Amino acid sequence: MSHTTGTKTPVTLLGLGAMGTALARAWLAAGHPLTVWNRTPSRAAALTAAGARAADSAATAVAANTLTVVCLLDDASVEETLNRTDLTGKDLVNLTTGTPAQARARAAWARERGARYLDGGIMAVPPMIGVPDAGAHILLSGSRELFDQHRQTLAVPAAATFVGEDAGFAALYDVALLSAMYGMFAGAAHAFALIRGEDIDPTKFAPLLADWLVAMAPAVHQTADQLRSGDYTKDVVSTLAMQVAGTPTFLTTAEEQGVSPELLTAYFTLMRRRLAEGSGEEDLTGVIDLLAR
Amino acid sequence: MSHTTGTKTPVTLLGLGAMGTALARAWLAAGHPLTVWNRTPSRAAALTAAGARAADSAATAVAANTLTVVCLLDDASVEETLNRTDLTGKDLVNLTTGTPAQARARAAWARERGARYLDGGIMAVPPMIGVPDAGAHILLSGSRELFDQHRQTLAVPAAATFVGEDAGFAALYDVALLSAMYGMFAGAAHAFALIRGEDIDPTKFAPLLADWLVAMAPAVHQTADQLRSGDYTKDVVSTLAMQVAGTPTFLTTAEEQGVSPELLTAYFTLMRRRLAEGSGEEDLTGVIDLLAR
Repeated sequence: MSHTTGTKTPVTLLGLGAMGTALARAWLAAGHPLTVWNRTPSRAAALTAAGARAADSAATAVAANTLTVVCLLDDASVEETLNRTDLTGKDLVNLTTGTPAQARARAAWARERGARYLDGGIMAVPPMIGVPDAGAHILLSGSRELFDQHRQTLAVPAAATFVGEDAGFAALYDVALLSAMYGMFAGAAHAFALIRGEDIDPTKFAPLLADWLVAMAPAVHQTADQLRSGDYTKDVVSTLAMQVAGTPTFLTTAEEQGVSPELLTAYFTLMRRRLAEGSGEEDLTGVIDLLAR
Repeated sequence: MSHTTGTKTPVTLLGLGAMGTALARAWLAAGHPLTVWNRTPSRAAALTAAGARAADSAATAVAANTLTVVCLLDDASVEETLNRTDLTGKDLVNLTTGTPAQARARAAWARERGARYLDGGIMAVPPMIGVPDAGAHILLSGSRELFDQHRQTLAVPAAATFVGEDAGFAALYDVALLSAMYGMFAGAAHAFALIRGEDIDPTKFAPLLADWLVAMAPAVHQTADQLRSGDYTKDVVSTLAMQVAGTPTFLTTAEEQGVSPELLTAYFTLMRRRLAEGSGEEDLTGVIDLLAR
């Protein structure tokens, strides 16, 4: 009997894609007994060499331990994989990316089968997993009892944050944060396109861009304060009217540089619509009101 | 004769909007003799009380000192204001927001009139001006001699960075950085809209959002490296094919939450177009290629 792993919670992990493999390595490195299963068994070889036990079926893997973590392609794969397993008395943590509605339905499905359920979103790319201070987060929602009991184990690959008993919240936060990231990437793509035709080294421009985005990101705190209070004119520095007045410079510059403005136009259109409603003294927050269908 | 201001370069400032006033206060606080002019003279009152000299015309203001800084509404205001001034032998720093082409044309116009010219973009909101470590930057381009001579004076309101002898570069950087910021704000607006229908306090969500954007902003360094090398497959963690496969989750979640996807669709459409070109193993960088008209 190993005295180094004896006190660590044993983990079953289903799914050994890039993220699953990174999770597996983090738990092994921290001394957790680990049982793995993957549809394509060859993926498990490097992990068994590092101390993991490979199960020959998902059912065997789930039976081996109380705690099962699932990291598969999509919700359909989760259902297909878990359908022939016995979940009675198990603790199921589903880190498969999906929508909030899928997470809520999967939580009800798991409870019907006698399992406690947590849904999770991993806010990281695989190289950040298990690396202290790399900034990786796992957002989890659903059973608070499950979270409280396995908190330390779940925090091994990345900082674990419980975001609510509604099993859909982790997926919602995950999708919301990634959506915001795509917006930022879209803006950065437009910026790089603008400088591209000039004699400007993109690697000299990138530090200015990164610093500027980091400096402006905290503006979301003011947006949140305004959404909470309902007063979108509080602490406004640059009004919607002033910002709309500035938009022709952005569109003309894109035209001068031979760049399509398609990544800016949707936001500018919403800014103008909000201004037309008589909200010129507001911040940009009112745009959010226009997104509700 | 004042011994506190005697060694500081005297500055003329045309334009006392919110930004011009913030610039004026910074130079006054640092002990620079300051001559100001504004089309609406009342704006100068608080500044003259703080030690500035108010000129009764732009021509008088420009005549008073060698260094003139202009911070007006737009390029047309600059032309109108400077048209009846004598710029011979003057150093003109134009911080008025405009397009790169306007900056280049204004530089040629100033040179024809015997002035040295710098164009600049202020990467800050007025409350950040003159506050050490607030992160404010002034990007400047055009005459390097002017920049080298007045570097210390120009760095009083904000960190001053010279970005090239092409007078249009500061405006181009300015517009590019602000465009990227609007992309980030658009993404954040979508994120806030997604959580809005739920029992989630936006001020509890905002710290996660700010931290996530700050963590992801440095991705622009890899984009720049790939643009420079032309190899968009280098160091890819999550391929374009994988990311396109994930987009239905974003669109379905928006639908579930009753949120219009209009702030995401342009970027997703470009991702799919690039994938259709056979670039599935690339990073997202190839989207930038599609923006060229």
